[in-house]
Amino acid sequence: MSRPTILVTNDDSLYSQGIKLLVEIAKEHGDVVVVAPNKPQSAMGHAITITKPLRLYEDPIFGEDVKAFACSGTPVDCVKLAVDKVLEKKPDLCLSGINHGSNASINVIYSGTMSAAMEAALEGINAIGFSSANYDPKGDMTTCAKYVREVLDLAMTHGFSMSRLLNVNIPNVPVDEVKGIKVCRQAVGKWSEEFDERIDPFKRKYYWLTGRFVNEDERKEETDLYALENGYVSVVPILLDFTAHQEVALLNEKWKTHA
Amino acid sequence: MSRPTILVTNDDSLYSQGIKLLVEIAKEHGDVVVVAPNKPQSAMGHAITITKPLRLYEDPIFGEDVKAFACSGTPVDCVKLAVDKVLEKKPDLCLSGINHGSNASINVIYSGTMSAAMEAALEGINAIGFSSANYDPKGDMTTCAKYVREVLDLAMTHGFSMSRLLNVNIPNVPVDEVKGIKVCRQAVGKWSEEFDERIDPFKRKYYWLTGRFVNEDERKEETDLYALENGYVSVVPILLDFTAHQEVALLNEKWKTHA
Repeated sequence: MSRPTILVTNDDSLYSQGIKLLVEIAKEHGDVVVVAPNKPQSAMGHAITITKPLRLYEDPIFGEDVKAFACSGTPVDCVKLAVDKVLEKKPDLCLSGINHGSNASINVIYSGTMSAAMEAALEGINAIGFSSANYDPKGDMTTCAKYVREVLDLAMTHGFSMSRLLNVNIPNVPVDEVKGIKVCRQAVGKWSEEFDERIDPFKRKYYWLTGRFVNEDERKEETDLYALENGYVSVVPILLDFTAHQEVALLNEKWKTHA
Repeated sequence: MSRPTILVTNDDSLYSQGIKLLVEIAKEHGDVVVVAPNKPQSAMGHAITITKPLRLYEDPIFGEDVKAFACSGTPVDCVKLAVDKVLEKKPDLCLSGINHGSNASINVIYSGTMSAAMEAALEGINAIGFSSANYDPKGDMTTCAKYVREVLDLAMTHGFSMSRLLNVNIPNVPVDEVKGIKVCRQAVGKWSEEFDERIDPFKRKYYWLTGRFVNEDERKEETDLYALENGYVSVVPILLDFTAHQEVALLNEKWKTHA
């Protein structure tokens, strides 16, 4: 049997510590091709580039046996270019990350790491986004190394989720304090904004986006945030259907519209 | 009873035809405040601006009775700034659009129009994203005018969806050919990329993202795309929970992980 082809990408750029580790782990499982942004693209969500053209340059940063490319676009652009222009056939798996910072709960909607994985799933490719709850881009990645390997082994040995897409977050604790892996649901939460208002040297106002995360979940125990806070690796299977299905019939009835 | 406060935003910028019409309609229902991008921000998805500060300038473009601001950020930034810095209290409703181009099916994930509405819903504000299946930014908006009014009347008279968020698309047909309003689900579909590869004057390659939409839905009749193609206004109630709930228990069992 031939080795699987694994596409690796992220949002922290080709030059981050997280993607370097992910490439090393992916190499244990298959032939690795990397297409990643040429600069940090955190919080780009599912943005795509339509008003300017994209650039793609090969960069042998991971040695001779890994084809790697830096792309001028967003994480989603990277996946689209990889599938249409870099790879000869659809890859068997797409891994995104390892992000420096948690993408649990509603962070999934802002995250470039997860958007890249989502785009791969939309293309019909099994995809996993990996994020570390450690926000330090130079931080120790021993816990990540062990549990990214374990989750990948589980997915490749026992089968993937039907929805083709997993959001995996690694708790920020020493490796011997991790309690295990938990498949769970996305916690209900939101960011509460607190813009930092300043005055520039020309007397004009400007604003820095800052905020604090609020966990609004009433049944916390079932969630990814609870898992992470209690020393578990959280795995959320993701579905890209935004429909509130329960409400379709209800709303047609209430509004007396066409069912 | 005091008039509701309605926040209006979009992704085509403060200077588009679609937002002008939406402001006019919103004024019939409440006090309108506008915070919209100062330049087109289509396809920005749920991107937020974290690596540079934001600017916000008042622009009396809609006359004396509508406070309007141009923002240097993304559609999601606009909603965040409006809630934290422009409005004294949380608005009663957020309307986004009217987008020049359909946001049915999976377009919801790329759309700045819908991301702005999503962000409002995350803040606990009832929100509607309106889009026209007519892609011409200078196109006739008679059909839009009638059906944006009708949907807004329905939502304000008979009650909103529990999920607080609606994706409304208006078909590109003359007003007397519209068959009605249909509440339906998001069609399964994707964009198939076809990058247009070119050579610049300096002999280097560059790529324009192009593609064609593929409707992959097997039960088409229930979907927003079917509604639109058959002359109905489509209304999809949206839920921002990405969890594939059916798979959480299944995957814990298959992987023998912690339930």
